[in-house]
Amino acid sequence: MIRVGIVGGTGYTGVELLRLLALHPKVELAAITSRGNVGEKVADMFPNLRGYVDLVFSDPATADLQSCDVVFFATPNGIAMSAARELLDAGVRVIDLAADFRIQDLGVWSQWYGMTHASPDLVREAVYGLPELNREAIREARLLANPGCHVTAVTLGLLPLVKAGWVDASSLIADSKSGVSGAGRKAEIPTLMAEAGESFRAYAVGGHRHQPEICQTLNLVAGQSVGLTFVPHLVPMVRGIEATLYARLNAQAGDLQALFEHAYADEPFVDVLPPGSLPETRSVRGNNMCRLAIYRPQGGDTVVVSSVIDNLVKGASGQAVQNMNLMFGFPEDMGLRIVGLLP
Amino acid sequence: MIRVGIVGGTGYTGVELLRLLALHPKVELAAITSRGNVGEKVADMFPNLRGYVDLVFSDPATADLQSCDVVFFATPNGIAMSAARELLDAGVRVIDLAADFRIQDLGVWSQWYGMTHASPDLVREAVYGLPELNREAIREARLLANPGCHVTAVTLGLLPLVKAGWVDASSLIADSKSGVSGAGRKAEIPTLMAEAGESFRAYAVGGHRHQPEICQTLNLVAGQSVGLTFVPHLVPMVRGIEATLYARLNAQAGDLQALFEHAYADEPFVDVLPPGSLPETRSVRGNNMCRLAIYRPQGGDTVVVSSVIDNLVKGASGQAVQNMNLMFGFPEDMGLRIVGLLP
Amino acid sequence: MIRVGIVGGTGYTGVELLRLLALHPKVELAAITSRGNVGEKVADMFPNLRGYVDLVFSDPATADLQSCDVVFFATPNGIAMSAARELLDAGVRVIDLAADFRIQDLGVWSQWYGMTHASPDLVREAVYGLPELNREAIREARLLANPGCHVTAVTLGLLPLVKAGWVDASSLIADSKSGVSGAGRKAEIPTLMAEAGESFRAYAVGGHRHQPEICQTLNLVAGQSVGLTFVPHLVPMVRGIEATLYARLNAQAGDLQALFEHAYADEPFVDVLPPGSLPETRSVRGNNMCRLAIYRPQGGDTVVVSSVIDNLVKGASGQAVQNMNLMFGFPEDMGLRIVGLLP
Amino acid sequence: MIRVGIVGGTGYTGVELLRLLALHPKVELAAITSRGNVGEKVADMFPNLRGYVDLVFSDPATADLQSCDVVFFATPNGIAMSAARELLDAGVRVIDLAADFRIQDLGVWSQWYGMTHASPDLVREAVYGLPELNREAIREARLLANPGCHVTAVTLGLLPLVKAGWVDASSLIADSKSGVSGAGRKAEIPTLMAEAGESFRAYAVGGHRHQPEICQTLNLVAGQSVGLTFVPHLVPMVRGIEATLYARLNAQAGDLQALFEHAYADEPFVDVLPPGSLPETRSVRGNNMCRLAIYRPQGGDTVVVSSVIDNLVKGASGQAVQNMNLMFGFPEDMGLRIVGLLP
Repeated sequence: MIRVGIVGGTGYTGVELLRLLALHPKVELAAITSRGNVGEKVADMFPNLRGYVDLVFSDPATADLQSCDVVFFATPNGIAMSAARELLDAGVRVIDLAADFRIQDLGVWSQWYGMTHASPDLVREAVYGLPELNREAIREARLLANPGCHVTAVTLGLLPLVKAGWVDASSLIADSKSGVSGAGRKAEIPTLMAEAGESFRAYAVGGHRHQPEICQTLNLVAGQSVGLTFVPHLVPMVRGIEATLYARLNAQAGDLQALFEHAYADEPFVDVLPPGSLPETRSVRGNNMCRLAIYRPQGGDTVVVSSVIDNLVKGASGQAVQNMNLMFGFPEDMGLRIVGLLP
Repeated sequence: MIRVGIVGGTGYTGVELLRLLALHPKVELAAITSRGNVGEKVADMFPNLRGYVDLVFSDPATADLQSCDVVFFATPNGIAMSAARELLDAGVRVIDLAADFRIQDLGVWSQWYGMTHASPDLVREAVYGLPELNREAIREARLLANPGCHVTAVTLGLLPLVKAGWVDASSLIADSKSGVSGAGRKAEIPTLMAEAGESFRAYAVGGHRHQPEICQTLNLVAGQSVGLTFVPHLVPMVRGIEATLYARLNAQAGDLQALFEHAYADEPFVDVLPPGSLPETRSVRGNNMCRLAIYRPQGGDTVVVSSVIDNLVKGASGQAVQNMNLMFGFPEDMGLRIVGLLP
Repeated sequence: MIRVGIVGGTGYTGVELLRLLALHPKVELAAITSRGNVGEKVADMFPNLRGYVDLVFSDPATADLQSCDVVFFATPNGIAMSAARELLDAGVRVIDLAADFRIQDLGVWSQWYGMTHASPDLVREAVYGLPELNREAIREARLLANPGCHVTAVTLGLLPLVKAGWVDASSLIADSKSGVSGAGRKAEIPTLMAEAGESFRAYAVGGHRHQPEICQTLNLVAGQSVGLTFVPHLVPMVRGIEATLYARLNAQAGDLQALFEHAYADEPFVDVLPPGSLPETRSVRGNNMCRLAIYRPQGGDTVVVSSVIDNLVKGASGQAVQNMNLMFGFPEDMGLRIVGLLP
Repeated sequence: MIRVGIVGGTGYTGVELLRLLALHPKVELAAITSRGNVGEKVADMFPNLRGYVDLVFSDPATADLQSCDVVFFATPNGIAMSAARELLDAGVRVIDLAADFRIQDLGVWSQWYGMTHASPDLVREAVYGLPELNREAIREARLLANPGCHVTAVTLGLLPLVKAGWVDASSLIADSKSGVSGAGRKAEIPTLMAEAGESFRAYAVGGHRHQPEICQTLNLVAGQSVGLTFVPHLVPMVRGIEATLYARLNAQAGDLQALFEHAYADEPFVDVLPPGSLPETRSVRGNNMCRLAIYRPQGGDTVVVSSVIDNLVKGASGQAVQNMNLMFGFPEDMGLRIVGLLP
């Protein structure tokens, strides 16, 4: 058993971590903090946890996080970069679900996140928590940067193509669509149901923070700077991301289905569907799987990949638990054997 | 381990049974039948089951159901009444999720279901599977009639009041609202998303099959014939039932909150919320709980109860698994410790 | 042509007024105010108005409202009660879409709205704008109180029964359900799509401001104090209210269908459906109609009425335009001949 | 006044035609046919039409369509190709909302629609009803082929770029998303709300009938054969299409915003939004506008266009009425001055 703490547990990634950790056979939930809700029972805010989580929100200033084996930060960007060091120094491992440690280039990070980084040395140390890319490093990580939601869906869909060098990496296109829970549990007008319901639109077309994060990984794999146009959209549903990815095949390209099946053959949480399948976001609702299908319309030179995840699971808290399992030597799917909720 | 079969597995109660049974530690899924889909992999129809269920749909005529310990009927009404006997004779226990064995008065049954019953003797033998009412009988049942979805939400909300004799049982009102999965996985125009989405309406106001089923239980408990006006409504969402129940209190009425808390104190799947709570259907999404809140608006003589369930779990397949657990001496919540999916 | 002003035009009743007034043949939109958005084009906030409304939000302090013939207040409660007098004194007629002038009993008003009323004399003068009740007084009104949304659906459904004296008016029940636009365009967590989507719940069960407003009208008609249990619910959709109403019939009760058809025979915006109909909220989407159906389940002594409106049209801005038409001698349906949007 | 008939009025394009034509000042609705619903009142099937449409469905075999000035076919593909000739011979003009006359290359048509064409000569005569492309020809048309829904959104978004020759026309990408009403009013499982609700997926990735239709227009404008990858998606909402379009700019490319504003300066139903806008489908709900925004992310060589329409209005029935207006010399926006329903 490990003792687990959560900093900032009132958002959607917080409640989702609790859903997953409450039944994890190796986890003891030790503390969950929220500055604004000290003393409130977690299950009063999130009634789905009644009978599963008895914790009360505690003050981050006084919570006994240092006795934990691992602490998850489910906080807004810019919190963990300052608060992680004290825990790390105390021997606690840290998993950050925000973006503080995702981008190695601090100039790029500052440009997109509008802050100067408080702990550049920790950025250098942090391991990027995409198990399909970095499994061995994750096992040893003291500080883990959990990937973004759109990022996970897009990266897993492009990785084999870019790695194989079968596509023109200078003009990749990712048209990604997310349910509204991706915007977080924040009182804002654009994600009111009366605004976002029964409507569909793009957002951040001019530039989105997930673009440099995807490129960082693809550049590494390609050994060159890739070109990616990334357009996120808001879907009138609560959970789920579908990314449709387009790339132009080059002369090296071979059997695409085989490429993907081979690339992910041993992955517990990537499921390459049979040819002709159409992945639905609901097939992974509540579940940590990424499902992929690959197409070559009319046998032309454009490859299309459709990639679906649950933005709160493989796109956030589920992947964080997968990373925790790796870090502590548990079976990678422990606590994550959950059948998706369909319908 | 018990061997389990499912007859008619292509509807929503079928896939939901599979979701729950696939991870049940004492269950081996032996067979699932569907006349129209023989040879098709179950996980091809329901991709959320990929990696969890390897079964192929088999022909009900040839499937080896007789070697099962228990067989679930997830079929339309009128199938189990003919097909159950052969299994029972072979020593297989039967749980019917349809309505064939729910109503003891065969005249009433025929009037509402438009058929003559094929097995009146089995109706007499069948145990009505509401554990909160019938737990001991369920343990011994050979043939179990699993309750209807609206029925479960309404009955659990009215039971303590009627049992205590604190309300005028001659004019009970149940205003119940269900998500569209309650209508089943059938190709019909009224439940198309373009018809049922972004709209709300009552249905079957003149009379619905669940009304006599609720009354059968309440009559028994009241020791008299109750009067119930039951109006179901269709909500533009996939899962969930909320029933708002109204009754006029009589002079015997005492502390309503205490009455409910006492009545359900030992129930694993009924959760009486603290005073002032507002149960949401999403708090039980994917979960077998029924959550209740009790109000006495303006301290007047009308009691209001709000009762929520997931229509496919406590309203169908979850309750069926709860009943199976009782029938086979397993812990009542085995396989049902699942945190509701919120958001 | 009349000159029309709108105070507080950034909420849903404001944009809905603009939708209706932009094409009204007798209306010239003169001014629309919003303290927080001075100088912004209305059509930049509400792009559906591009090409139809050229106005810019102006400052309520300096806007030339006094040259208008009529000013609508689409403001939060408590604004019009102070601001209306100056306009009235200048000869401008005022239609308040908030609750400031709806309740004649100021003690009741203060209790529910948590304020002391600034203009008791104006409350006495105000005409309650339910045309089906008050048409002649509305024609002459200088100050009009536009009814609440749930109120309109419930009152129109109960009025004929209470007026006829055919029901026990001491225990009326109104189970009302509203889409999320009824909560207004306010940055609040409970109406985020990730909170209110795919879920259903009651709210304000202990007491809601619309209850005393409904009772005020029914008391008047009944000539006695009625008893009403009113429970509102939140539906995961944008627009629409359905109220299911229950009352116990007394010995005077006769042909219910005929009662309603007769009561509303000459009403342009109440549509009594044929027996057996099931009103859908979508049948009135964007439209000023209230559709009603009347049932007597199993021929018993309980009458059930289902009443649907669009909460933003007949429940707010459409009814306000209907009242304006009456006040200025225009055809009552001018600008309101709009076919509901189905699907 | 012209006399108008509708063949096949029980689908969504049929009821939408009725919504628009019922209030059109120059239209007298003469007949609406439906083989399966002869004698039924149209307003009983579509209650939003109560009070606006008194017609009864008549038999297509006996309906007096020949006395009409124009007949709309709102039928499945393959009906109008046989039935139109008799009407044309009688001097009736015909507008087909299906695909029978959209594709000039009959080989291509047969391949995608799986039929041999019954009237090749009529295909040659038919005018393709995209007013922004073909206005003058439409005025004179006897037989009009109304464009597909995805087609309209995609074509209007790509047309100026391809016409100007500013993009590499060999690798255009259209990622299009449609609400479920696009699938029609047909009893089918995949568009049940319990299947399509709260989920998102691509469909027809391997090839969709709208692809050759888009290419036919773009080829014409480009003067060469273009390459287009078109992937449609299903959005959990009722109405609306958003298409995100990607193309690689070439050296000729200039000011993109100016290009689009100039191209559509005189168009009543194309609205080029200011730079930085994000078109929402709800801004055109119930309305005939196509709204476009143009981006050049990070100033790179990829142009992104977001194009929104209401699939049932500009994507079907509204465009058909626009075409009718042109054909009969009415103002092009007659009957189409309707403010979109937001929220």
